[in-house]
Amino acid sequence: MTPGEISSILHQLCDAAALETLPRFRTGLGVDNKDMKAFDPVTEADRQAELAIRNLLTEKHPDHGITGEEFGSVNEDARFRWIVDPVDGTRAFIAGIPVWGTLIGLYENGKPLAGIMNQPFTGERYLSDGQSSVFEHNGRTQTLQTSQVTELSDVIMMTTAPELFNERDAECFNRVAQSCRLVRYGADCYAYAQLAAGHLGLVIETGLNVYDIAALIPIIENAGGIITGWQGESASSDGRIVAAANRSLHERALDLLNA
Amino acid sequence: MTPGEISSILHQLCDAAALETLPRFRTGLGVDNKDMKAFDPVTEADRQAELAIRNLLTEKHPDHGITGEEFGSVNEDARFRWIVDPVDGTRAFIAGIPVWGTLIGLYENGKPLAGIMNQPFTGERYLSDGQSSVFEHNGRTQTLQTSQVTELSDVIMMTTAPELFNERDAECFNRVAQSCRLVRYGADCYAYAQLAAGHLGLVIETGLNVYDIAALIPIIENAGGIITGWQGESASSDGRIVAAANRSLHERALDLLNA
Repeated sequence: MTPGEISSILHQLCDAAALETLPRFRTGLGVDNKDMKAFDPVTEADRQAELAIRNLLTEKHPDHGITGEEFGSVNEDARFRWIVDPVDGTRAFIAGIPVWGTLIGLYENGKPLAGIMNQPFTGERYLSDGQSSVFEHNGRTQTLQTSQVTELSDVIMMTTAPELFNERDAECFNRVAQSCRLVRYGADCYAYAQLAAGHLGLVIETGLNVYDIAALIPIIENAGGIITGWQGESASSDGRIVAAANRSLHERALDLLNA
Repeated sequence: MTPGEISSILHQLCDAAALETLPRFRTGLGVDNKDMKAFDPVTEADRQAELAIRNLLTEKHPDHGITGEEFGSVNEDARFRWIVDPVDGTRAFIAGIPVWGTLIGLYENGKPLAGIMNQPFTGERYLSDGQSSVFEHNGRTQTLQTSQVTELSDVIMMTTAPELFNERDAECFNRVAQSCRLVRYGADCYAYAQLAAGHLGLVIETGLNVYDIAALIPIIENAGGIITGWQGESASSDGRIVAAANRSLHERALDLLNA
């Protein structure tokens, strides 16, 4: 697939998903609990958007693999595999805060190649076609470029919520947090998009699944950022993620996480 | 002033402020520290937007009072006084997250009468003209109505950041937090807007100044909500605020805050 073909299908998939998510945003529709203990709400938006994405992919690329949050995997060994989180940030969604997004990643031979984050309420798309990363909004397209600031004390870090860390991970996280200029909470996939856009220095999280991160890896890497696990390993192999605007910030964060 | 006159001037003031804030959002312009210890950034957006609002008010209503975050008070004893926070949520602003807003409240004889919250990036306005509260977006206007859900265990609570509470206040806050279905962080004035719109049950914060809350009081009250200090006193008299979607949630929250 060429970058142009990838970009085109990512936009079509997001258009289809948005028809299912946006009309349900802020409507107070029911929220199920998949797991009462962990409070992982799944809305009808989540299910219907994933079905819309899967239907379009199956029609256009029946030989490709698909892994989705809601409906599992097909053709996992195909050369091209799509990784779908129809509503990343379901808690933000039910709170009316537009920092949730539809995440669609494309793997080639098991490795992240391209991806998109779509926020349909604000009309923002953050996209990597496998070569570069761009931001699209109100019909304008800008190249995404991460920050060049290299000192932790000069940058903003984000994470979804402090209570998502277990006690040991919280200690590691806090060592980095105390070194940063400012820590903000509550942005889910939107935080990674702002890192790609140059506004944040770090995003550090835990407990992520492959569909939470697959789409974001190429967006960040092709904008100049680094995204790995907490030990520096591949970001797609571990639920603990550190995304950094540049190599210096990444090294400083890993040093503190593993001190 | 009639509700129509109030609504009209609030929109004009927001239009003028947005010309100063929106072009500076996500541009990476410099951020000053008013107070290094508390990290209270003030951007050029903050200053220029407040000047734009003050200039327009002085031109149209030279006899009115104005209290602004950046440039203090004039005519404090006037019958009508405007309370201005040009960029509420400066930390969100510099992180690229569009949950900041321009807050403009109108007091009559020392009491909150009307107000607006404008988020120019998303194009959302939450407005009370002193009689009702409305949401304006994409040229459509909807009446704001808070949630009727009365059990804490069924509702979402928001606050800006857990570390903004001192130790004693954090204990009080945590008693409420543990009773709620879900706690989300990081939304500044946007959280109060979502409470007015029916998506949240509670917002509990501390350390707020009059310009952080003045505009939000009429928006919440005229949407059916309750907003007071932690002891149930007037919301404009104390920096500790509890906003609730209805009287039942407010009583339950006060009970736990003061247990």
